[in-house]
Amino acid sequence: MTAPLVARPLSAEAFRPFGDVLEAQGDPDRIINDGHCGRWHDRARIDMAGGPAGLSIFRASPRRFPVSIGLLERHPLGSQAFVPMAAAPFLVVVAPDAGGLPGAPLAFVAGPGQGVNYLRGVWHAVLTPLAPPGLFAVLDRVDEAPNLEEHRLPAPLVVVPDAASGAGLEI
Amino acid sequence: MTAPLVARPLSAEAFRPFGDVLEAQGDPDRIINDGHCGRWHDRARIDMAGGPAGLSIFRASPRRFPVSIGLLERHPLGSQAFVPMAAAPFLVVVAPDAGGLPGAPLAFVAGPGQGVNYLRGVWHAVLTPLAPPGLFAVLDRVDEAPNLEEHRLPAPLVVVPDAASGAGLEI
Repeated sequence: MTAPLVARPLSAEAFRPFGDVLEAQGDPDRIINDGHCGRWHDRARIDMAGGPAGLSIFRASPRRFPVSIGLLERHPLGSQAFVPMAAAPFLVVVAPDAGGLPGAPLAFVAGPGQGVNYLRGVWHAVLTPLAPPGLFAVLDRVDEAPNLEEHRLPAPLVVVPDAASGAGLEI
Repeated sequence: MTAPLVARPLSAEAFRPFGDVLEAQGDPDRIINDGHCGRWHDRARIDMAGGPAGLSIFRASPRRFPVSIGLLERHPLGSQAFVPMAAAPFLVVVAPDAGGLPGAPLAFVAGPGQGVNYLRGVWHAVLTPLAPPGLFAVLDRVDEAPNLEEHRLPAPLVVVPDAASGAGLEI
């Protein structure tokens, strides 16, 4: 039995090798609209490998800790951004590539006001909201190019919150 | 004194000439992730006129009804999508073009779970959240091409909610 994977609060620094955290962190790059709005400019490394990007809406069933992850996937032809449409947490599980398969996974809890953009080709778990409504806007490739690789894990990964993330995650 | 403009609940049909409503309305186009997630596919008419699209974060000060609008703007070189990162309403004011200037404006209240994508060149008011946190992900052009036209209205437009939209909008 493998030890559970502990999900830490999501931070831009820890997540950088896998993608971008979409959040209003630090000072805005610009102040617009007569001072009424801050703009944190161009915060996602969008890379569609020449294909068309589109905005779609995803609605996924919320899960509760401990979360069991049986499958990781990646998109060889494009980055994929998830913007939560509610101030609700979701689980982010990623893994470095190790010779074409996922290596040792990491887990993060994205808090209210945080979205993520997975870099092209990064192994990740499917969309896992931790509270209703599970509604997200998604920016990814929208053509029919073969853009999905899946890897079923030999044993499901069990993800638990750390003490900090666990607080306030009751649905 | 001009009569106030009444903001109606946002609907995809009424908004179509100006842009797209980003929402999980009706049946999903696809069911993914072993049945746990619906995908409403490619719901925004993204048009960057050949320029680069990027994801930015905006945080704007919330306003309260009646809302006074003194300025409309448009982006001749790209569409602009706003995805709220909280289940909170925001005000959407648009106008058809009338010989290079905004024509008669329309106002809508986007409810929880609704974002908008303004078509390229559509006159609109600046981002106007109606409740905290005023946090949005924005997909628009991120280069330095001259992509902003502004029109200051001769008299400010006063926007009020209709009976349906007004309910539940207290901050």
